[in-house]
Amino acid sequence: MPHATASRVTTPSRLSRRAAWAEGQPISELMSRALADPNLISLAAGFVDQQTLPVEPTAEAFRSLFADAESARAALQYGTTPGYPPLREALLNRFLDADETTADDAKLSIDQVVLTAGSNQLLHLVCESLLDPGDIVLCASPTYLVFLGTLGNLGARSVAVETDEHGIVPEAIDDALRQIDRRGELERVKAIYVTSYFDNPCGITTPAKRRAAIVELAKRWSRSSKIYVIEDAAYRELRYWGDDVPSLRSFDDDGRTVVVAGTFSKSYSPGIRVGWGFLPPQLVAPVCNQKGNIDFGSPNFSQHLMAHVMDRGLFDAHVKSICTSYREKLEAMLAAADRWLTPLSGVRWLRPTGGLYVWLQVPDGVDTGFSGPLFDAAIEQGVLYVPGEFCYPAEGVPASRSRIRLSFGVQSCERIAAGIEALARAIRAVAS
Amino acid sequence: MPHATASRVTTPSRLSRRAAWAEGQPISELMSRALADPNLISLAAGFVDQQTLPVEPTAEAFRSLFADAESARAALQYGTTPGYPPLREALLNRFLDADETTADDAKLSIDQVVLTAGSNQLLHLVCESLLDPGDIVLCASPTYLVFLGTLGNLGARSVAVETDEHGIVPEAIDDALRQIDRRGELERVKAIYVTSYFDNPCGITTPAKRRAAIVELAKRWSRSSKIYVIEDAAYRELRYWGDDVPSLRSFDDDGRTVVVAGTFSKSYSPGIRVGWGFLPPQLVAPVCNQKGNIDFGSPNFSQHLMAHVMDRGLFDAHVKSICTSYREKLEAMLAAADRWLTPLSGVRWLRPTGGLYVWLQVPDGVDTGFSGPLFDAAIEQGVLYVPGEFCYPAEGVPASRSRIRLSFGVQSCERIAAGIEALARAIRAVAS
Repeated sequence: MPHATASRVTTPSRLSRRAAWAEGQPISELMSRALADPNLISLAAGFVDQQTLPVEPTAEAFRSLFADAESARAALQYGTTPGYPPLREALLNRFLDADETTADDAKLSIDQVVLTAGSNQLLHLVCESLLDPGDIVLCASPTYLVFLGTLGNLGARSVAVETDEHGIVPEAIDDALRQIDRRGELERVKAIYVTSYFDNPCGITTPAKRRAAIVELAKRWSRSSKIYVIEDAAYRELRYWGDDVPSLRSFDDDGRTVVVAGTFSKSYSPGIRVGWGFLPPQLVAPVCNQKGNIDFGSPNFSQHLMAHVMDRGLFDAHVKSICTSYREKLEAMLAAADRWLTPLSGVRWLRPTGGLYVWLQVPDGVDTGFSGPLFDAAIEQGVLYVPGEFCYPAEGVPASRSRIRLSFGVQSCERIAAGIEALARAIRAVAS
Repeated sequence: MPHATASRVTTPSRLSRRAAWAEGQPISELMSRALADPNLISLAAGFVDQQTLPVEPTAEAFRSLFADAESARAALQYGTTPGYPPLREALLNRFLDADETTADDAKLSIDQVVLTAGSNQLLHLVCESLLDPGDIVLCASPTYLVFLGTLGNLGARSVAVETDEHGIVPEAIDDALRQIDRRGELERVKAIYVTSYFDNPCGITTPAKRRAAIVELAKRWSRSSKIYVIEDAAYRELRYWGDDVPSLRSFDDDGRTVVVAGTFSKSYSPGIRVGWGFLPPQLVAPVCNQKGNIDFGSPNFSQHLMAHVMDRGLFDAHVKSICTSYREKLEAMLAAADRWLTPLSGVRWLRPTGGLYVWLQVPDGVDTGFSGPLFDAAIEQGVLYVPGEFCYPAEGVPASRSRIRLSFGVQSCERIAAGIEALARAIRAVAS
């Protein structure tokens, strides 16, 4: 009975609803295309620069950690779910210093610091603790594309909020909440997500006045249920011009509204992969309980290593050095854009002062997506980009199909310039 | 209007259903008690031995990894979601060798190997991909207590299957499935979870005949939906006597039923925290999609480091060395038990040949739980244990309250002996 046997063997594997919600990240498709052709200049992936990765500082920190067998053993043993206290303390102090405040004034203690596998795991754990399927997070339009996947994976809804050249518009948040309230869905809104420094994909830093307004709006609209502000500060260290600005968290008087996510992935090493969160006190237990059931603590070894990196001043020195290098790359991209893209009508771009991205508009009507004409034309000319459409929340303001995210982190200045020139050729070919 | 202000500030933070399901692991309570009194001999925590952690091998692997700036940089950069290919290949080959099979015969390729933050994250991701709230996993009674937390966190149900001195009883699996089927819930059963080597908490290795029977049962009962076998092989390397036995996976002819979870946490270092899974092909994309949305890949740095550890033969040498050390500790525990516990009526224990645990029965009617008399008596005598009740699934065969899990991994032989003697005094005090 071959049929009977076959049918037994192929009993359908019924996966969870989560499995249906979890889609592959679109960026994976891009990676494989980039890898397939090494001559292609990828301005797509948000990788950090390979050449400036901290080989020497990490070797020094490792030697320091392993100079003493007891400290080496402590790093090789299990840690705790929230993570290694000296590293949490160092991160807390650094954050308080940057915001020019104190633990008391900020109402922030080491108990509210949790270490995770990159900031993405922190975002995931916070969302897991707050969101049921169908719950809503307000996001800038456009916003960090991987976070949209995180929300989708939970069956949660991302609702777009209008942005301008200064990022998310507070009045638009107010409008969005009013509309949602009118639909009777206000209690489903759990958070407003803001990438507050040199955001991915636009490179915009939220101005101080808007920071205050966003926190105030979250508190004011916390009626049927509490609305958090999730402040993603992944790029805060990567400032190439101007002065640092205080966090959104600094406008949260009682410290119960803003969650801050941070990471060493952009500022030191994505391979070591240590991220962190500064949590409102009432979210510490929920987040740690989730984490306790998933991995009971991120790698202790990486945390001890990073504690030595910070303790020896290697982190600050490294940040300084990569900021110099990234500034040159950003200058190269902007200069090339000025030269090759200015002549093209309908092409405009933002001029960030930090981060890793330049957000570009091509002529209206030119579809930048995988299935549009520009993507293939760009590959033909030798350059890869991230189609802007992936950066738009699922609901609300519709996605623009004529935007592009360019990353200047990975390539040399020469290849950045060549990539922009190639992009100009592609746009010209398609627009004509 | 102080009242109005207060009510605005304290708008209830409505957490997700997941947050309500995620409870703190009971083991945390134990840890804090152990830490509070350093004189207490903890036979509770499943930590590995601090003294035999691989300081020298890790330093050697690090030097090898950082001897070349290119290889160091590769480790410091982002990796891929499934993990570093050379390490996945090394783990695959080691597994095939242990099972005395080939990739072709086992129908297992590198594409089916996924690296995770410890085996716990692998278990979590697999469960996340398979289980909706209310779905069922059959577990031995008793079973690995942290896994019960993982299931609870997902709103899934753990159903107990009877065990004897050889572990989970295949006929009892058959009975449990028949009962579930009669209740009309067969389609909710998604997996049978088996810790196949020196299980936590009993120290039992599933005999080959039962392995074959368990896989056969999973396939036979895969009617309305597929039933997987999740083989947790965390302790496979920690064998102190006798020969290795082939995995449950080796009885899975088409390779579509058994998931294998492995980890370096027990055999090398929990701090480096690299685990892995060998997945049926149809689960690779679901698991990687979940992982892509959570952390897009576990720390690349740790994976490169472990690849060097394996490549230089340091892993095999380390396993050999810790097995000698753990065997002495296990002998010390069994000898102390023979001496101090044999005289006590109603006290019996299993004699494992590997792993980190001894499972002990105290006289019927003596409640070993936090609120029972023995736990406090034991602390008074100077010893800490894990109450057995935490190791029982939520449904099915009821939990026994007269069992204890003892761990011999952490303490010296002298302290193990003193701990058992203290336990004997406590049992005598309570039983009399």
